Amino acid sequence: MNNKNNSPQLPEELRSFSPVTVIGAGVIGISWTALFLAKGLEVRVNDVRPDLEEVVYKGLEQMIPTLKELGLPTEGLKDRLIIEKNIERALDGAAVVQENGPERIAFKQELYAQIEQFVSKDTLLLSSSSSLKASDIAEKMDTPERMLIGHPFNPPHLVPLVEIVPGKNTASGAVDRAVAFYKALGKNPLILKKEIAGFVANRLQAALFREAIHLVMEEVVSVKDLDEIVTSSIGLRWAAGGPFLTFQLGGGQGGFPAFLKHLGPVLEGLWDQLGEPRFDDATVQTLSDLSASSYGEIPQMELKENRDSRQLSVLHALKEKSK
Amino acid sequence: MNNKNNSPQLPEELRSFSPVTVIGAGVIGISWTALFLAKGLEVRVNDVRPDLEEVVYKGLEQMIPTLKELGLPTEGLKDRLIIEKNIERALDGAAVVQENGPERIAFKQELYAQIEQFVSKDTLLLSSSSSLKASDIAEKMDTPERMLIGHPFNPPHLVPLVEIVPGKNTASGAVDRAVAFYKALGKNPLILKKEIAGFVANRLQAALFREAIHLVMEEVVSVKDLDEIVTSSIGLRWAAGGPFLTFQLGGGQGGFPAFLKHLGPVLEGLWDQLGEPRFDDATVQTLSDLSASSYGEIPQMELKENRDSRQLSVLHALKEKSK
Repeated sequence: MNNKNNSPQLPEELRSFSPVTVIGAGVIGISWTALFLAKGLEVRVNDVRPDLEEVVYKGLEQMIPTLKELGLPTEGLKDRLIIEKNIERALDGAAVVQENGPERIAFKQELYAQIEQFVSKDTLLLSSSSSLKASDIAEKMDTPERMLIGHPFNPPHLVPLVEIVPGKNTASGAVDRAVAFYKALGKNPLILKKEIAGFVANRLQAALFREAIHLVMEEVVSVKDLDEIVTSSIGLRWAAGGPFLTFQLGGGQGGFPAFLKHLGPVLEGLWDQLGEPRFDDATVQTLSDLSASSYGEIPQMELKENRDSRQLSVLHALKEKSK
Repeated sequence: MNNKNNSPQLPEELRSFSPVTVIGAGVIGISWTALFLAKGLEVRVNDVRPDLEEVVYKGLEQMIPTLKELGLPTEGLKDRLIIEKNIERALDGAAVVQENGPERIAFKQELYAQIEQFVSKDTLLLSSSSSLKASDIAEKMDTPERMLIGHPFNPPHLVPLVEIVPGKNTASGAVDRAVAFYKALGKNPLILKKEIAGFVANRLQAALFREAIHLVMEEVVSVKDLDEIVTSSIGLRWAAGGPFLTFQLGGGQGGFPAFLKHLGPVLEGLWDQLGEPRFDDATVQTLSDLSASSYGEIPQMELKENRDSRQLSVLHALKEKSK
């Protein structure tokens, strides 16, 4: 296998990253595959699942409308796609690997020890892991310097964020290449300075969601109304500017120090009252019931299409703005 | 004072809510005033501050560009505005009061006991309070049934959310009228079923911000990168659909119960590791320094204009979508 099939439309800044091998054809892996193909990269998809071909083709088909709405070409994607159940053949000649395997540390350690045998020394190895550390994943590798986390926010073909988290042995050159790769794909890669469980986005999400659960369990608000409160206030705000910028601007001319002085005590007062729910059986049952009473009447596909359509509108609006 | 000055463009659904008396001409009060005027209502602004006239006119002037971008008329706003330092005269004939006084319970209790003497029995009394309960505010009133919280998310002329929080003595008819009033203004009023400190949006914001502070204090990420992580993932998501809908869709065909089953334990694992920072002097100093090193080079006005412009784009996009 080689680069011969590189698309003529492959942009200059992506040439050194083709072909890409995607390991693991779950939801994330297929979404990455769709984006890589639409951007002109040659892609090999590898997974041991027996229905691999069917699941990849079906998944790609479902993502095509979104790719179109994102303004990406969707013709001839499969011409640059190779589906390969044998991992050695799938990795042959890969410039980049984007791995999306199961989140089990022992599994990933074995996988990466195997991957490094089948690729060249400068192949960039990126894991989509949302919970494991590169330092741990690379523990059995001889060449951990080119391995790091490139964690997308689901689904990767739509949401811009990629959290870049190097391990203790990752070389700075590999971090630079990963950033260049994701930027060339139109993503927004942000580098974390320390390895931490859950990284940044999922920790912030977990913190907010814990209080969301508390508020619906305490019957302060319905599931649907809580969602609407978020979309018509903080969600809207944080699509335009993050929480620190929001509060810096909230401080007026005095900026963030003025904000902290005036509203710091108010925030601390609220922190002391935040809930600490757990997912015991009764809570899971109640949450499932409450969620069903808010959304259960509407087919899941309709909810998804409405949300995705709103999501694309917001993305378009912000993209226009950043031009 | 009477309704004679009602604008001919005052929409039918707002006629029974004019004139409005705005008490307290701080940032929130002036923002409400701008919106009320732009929607065609007659408005009286009351405050004891000696520079009242100057501060109201200057504030309105600053909000006009945003009103324009929202597609609202901005001609002749002052023709329907009366600035009145005497509270009795300001309240004479008011159909609605939107109060934005200092957040001190004793002050508000006295204020409302005074307000009810100067208005008719069916004047709707709405407090912008972000932290006090209607049940407490109305404690010294003879007619608490028409008093409730109508808490906007700052700034009210731009952000759609209004949290409606009735007190223990608020009549359901007053809640209905408040909802009708805010809806007629193009806002998104959501009713809370229980009085709780901080209501919903600010509690959720406080929960996320606590972890945001933890992550920058632990040097996992810079202030600016954390903001970018939010805007390019969860902020974007929550502008299109709230946290429960997000996770319901994250569960695929199995919906929310499937999500809870698979990712509940992951969330609980993260909850156990969330930070619990406090605003001690050292933390406030470090946060101020970190914020300055991320945003200190850019003038506050430029940051604000960029953010507001992105905010308006997102609002427009979502408005188009909901048509």
